[in-house]
Amino acid sequence: MKGIWKYKDLMDLPTNLPPFSLGEGDTPLIQSKNIGPEMGMTNLYFKLETANPSGSYKDRFAAIAIAEILNKKSKICLATTSGNTGAALAAYSAAAGLPCKIAIVEGAPEGKLKQMRAYGAKLFMIKGFGISSEISERVFDKLAKLAVQYHTRIQVSAFKYCPIGMKGVQSISFELAEDMPEAKNIFVPAGGGGLALAVARGFHLWRQRFPGFEVPRVHCVQPEGNNTIAGNLRLGLDYAQPVTDAVTKISGLQVANVIDGNDTLKACRDTKGNGYLVTDKKVFECQRLLAEKEGIFAEPAGAVSLAGWLEAVRSGELKPEDKAVCIVTGNGFKDPPSIEDLINMNPVQYLEDEESMDAYFGVE
Amino acid sequence: MKGIWKYKDLMDLPTNLPPFSLGEGDTPLIQSKNIGPEMGMTNLYFKLETANPSGSYKDRFAAIAIAEILNKKSKICLATTSGNTGAALAAYSAAAGLPCKIAIVEGAPEGKLKQMRAYGAKLFMIKGFGISSEISERVFDKLAKLAVQYHTRIQVSAFKYCPIGMKGVQSISFELAEDMPEAKNIFVPAGGGGLALAVARGFHLWRQRFPGFEVPRVHCVQPEGNNTIAGNLRLGLDYAQPVTDAVTKISGLQVANVIDGNDTLKACRDTKGNGYLVTDKKVFECQRLLAEKEGIFAEPAGAVSLAGWLEAVRSGELKPEDKAVCIVTGNGFKDPPSIEDLINMNPVQYLEDEESMDAYFGVE
Ligand SMILES: Cc1ncc(COP(=O)(O)O)c(C=O)c1O
Ligand SMILES: Cc1ncc(COP(=O)(O)O)c(C=O)c1O
Repeated sequence: MKGIWKYKDLMDLPTNLPPFSLGEGDTPLIQSKNIGPEMGMTNLYFKLETANPSGSYKDRFAAIAIAEILNKKSKICLATTSGNTGAALAAYSAAAGLPCKIAIVEGAPEGKLKQMRAYGAKLFMIKGFGISSEISERVFDKLAKLAVQYHTRIQVSAFKYCPIGMKGVQSISFELAEDMPEAKNIFVPAGGGGLALAVARGFHLWRQRFPGFEVPRVHCVQPEGNNTIAGNLRLGLDYAQPVTDAVTKISGLQVANVIDGNDTLKACRDTKGNGYLVTDKKVFECQRLLAEKEGIFAEPAGAVSLAGWLEAVRSGELKPEDKAVCIVTGNGFKDPPSIEDLINMNPVQYLEDEESMDAYFGVE
Repeated sequence: MKGIWKYKDLMDLPTNLPPFSLGEGDTPLIQSKNIGPEMGMTNLYFKLETANPSGSYKDRFAAIAIAEILNKKSKICLATTSGNTGAALAAYSAAAGLPCKIAIVEGAPEGKLKQMRAYGAKLFMIKGFGISSEISERVFDKLAKLAVQYHTRIQVSAFKYCPIGMKGVQSISFELAEDMPEAKNIFVPAGGGGLALAVARGFHLWRQRFPGFEVPRVHCVQPEGNNTIAGNLRLGLDYAQPVTDAVTKISGLQVANVIDGNDTLKACRDTKGNGYLVTDKKVFECQRLLAEKEGIFAEPAGAVSLAGWLEAVRSGELKPEDKAVCIVTGNGFKDPPSIEDLINMNPVQYLEDEESMDAYFGVE
């Protein structure tokens, strides 16, 4: 058994769940080749969730979520998404032969929508959904009713709504615990906080199974424009808070509501993890750094963890010898406009003929 | 050791090559959930090279090629590409801190160019390169001279030019031999034929190491518009032939010259593999089938293997019980325009408010 399903027992899933898989999990853990070393930090690692079948860690969620639907013999996958959850569910629904209907938030990036449509998912967008919290709530209530009619649940990658699917995400920690038990700082991007919560819970489960294991610090990194958890975690408060408007431009992390936030905050604190707030500008810079210095093509949300790590180094909270892993949660191809600025600075050179190559190469 | 480097001995590489890695290899092998079963073929599998760090199997090549450059202390990566080789080399060069200059062929897909540029590679395009075989040859000669001046070699994913880098690609077969030694038919897309040659050679190396292993049939699949190898292989001839014009629209497989073709043809025949020719139309249909029926997002070249498999089934050359693997060589995100038709048939539905959802869902 490969991928997440080898941890079926540990994930504590319903025993009769079919191991539905598109090859999710077993993602690479690679050492920083330039960013870390240039700062005198030789112990920086990246966990490449970009390598999952649909290009983000959400495949770990979708595999279990769809298995649950198959198990319950529901006839539809019903979801809301800003992008990656939908892309993952669309892929797994296609493979499972399930129709997949997805309410997408306004402003979801084109690349992710195209991916969902390619898998054959049916998308609908309701004016203001995901922008106005009032409209969002009304849409959500309506979806919940539809879900009841269809004998299914709304798929959202959060423990609050889909505790079973989210258990799949815990496999990130199992893989980290196996591959690098000595990594003591894990940097995790957070929107609603479900991912960070799954990572923290995964490590706790691992310690329950292997009592010698020392749970690493799970750090929660958020864009300043969506400070629901990280700020309060840092301040020592024990609750998350909604924001009026998620003004960050980082797709996937615009989650104004608390959702899993309170549990996430407590779970991170239990691990002695801290909160880090980063600017969008820094995040886009980290996306560029990952591409140009590490050969890692990440979407902005996937670069948030590195922004958090840089902040931890800058503030002296991380020592050069501290082993750290940044979870790179999603692939750059998900959001082509996010790299437009970057690539515009690096245009293609057009040459008339092969003789022009000498000049281009600066060879006499 | 994970990924391709665990096979270092078997690949027969220079012993002092540093194991440079971005997490390539160890790609998923998954069973067809719908396409095979709907045809009564329960033994169809897909090897997802889409999961590699830059989204194609070329990462297996690039890891070794860049390790070789580092080993030789060359100061530049110089390459020509239709797309995927360049994207892979750009990523690994970035991580290695090497400047990467790439001559791209006219008509290389935008998605692949953007990816290379995001990694910071410097691209240049010479009028007619990759279109006219005369210009292509002149450009190639010029590049070869530049390579000598830079004490390096031109990186092309073909044994003819880069036998060491290509050894990395053999790891596909090692993984298949380990994961599913009973698979007896491997369908491989071919442009210049380097990939199919690497796959066939990989299996032979595996048998040398493990004499009990039975080499599977390696089938070479080409678009009709680039019939350099597959047709002659099928006809029983023992040579490949150039085409005047590679008229196929499948990016990555437009290779009018023979390159590795003669060796590929012989190596496939040695395994009792056959040649399959497929139309572009069938390939695009297979790309759609993979997305909609298997949840696999592939670029057109990556769907060519499935088109070959379908042809083998249609012609009765493959029996229902025959275990077959299609190598899905590259990710759908590489070539967004190739899915435009597909997604245009599946538009996003815009709704005014949550009340409109009832009608949309067809609920009274
Ligand atoms: C790429 C990426 N990273 C991180 C997250 C954050 O997840 P969460 O909302 O569970 O905190 C998301 C959520 O959509 C995402 O798509
Ligand atoms: C996605 C993909 N598949 C298959 C091939 C075929 O490789 P070869 O030219 O070695 O036959 C290529 C080559 O560029 C490719 O990019």
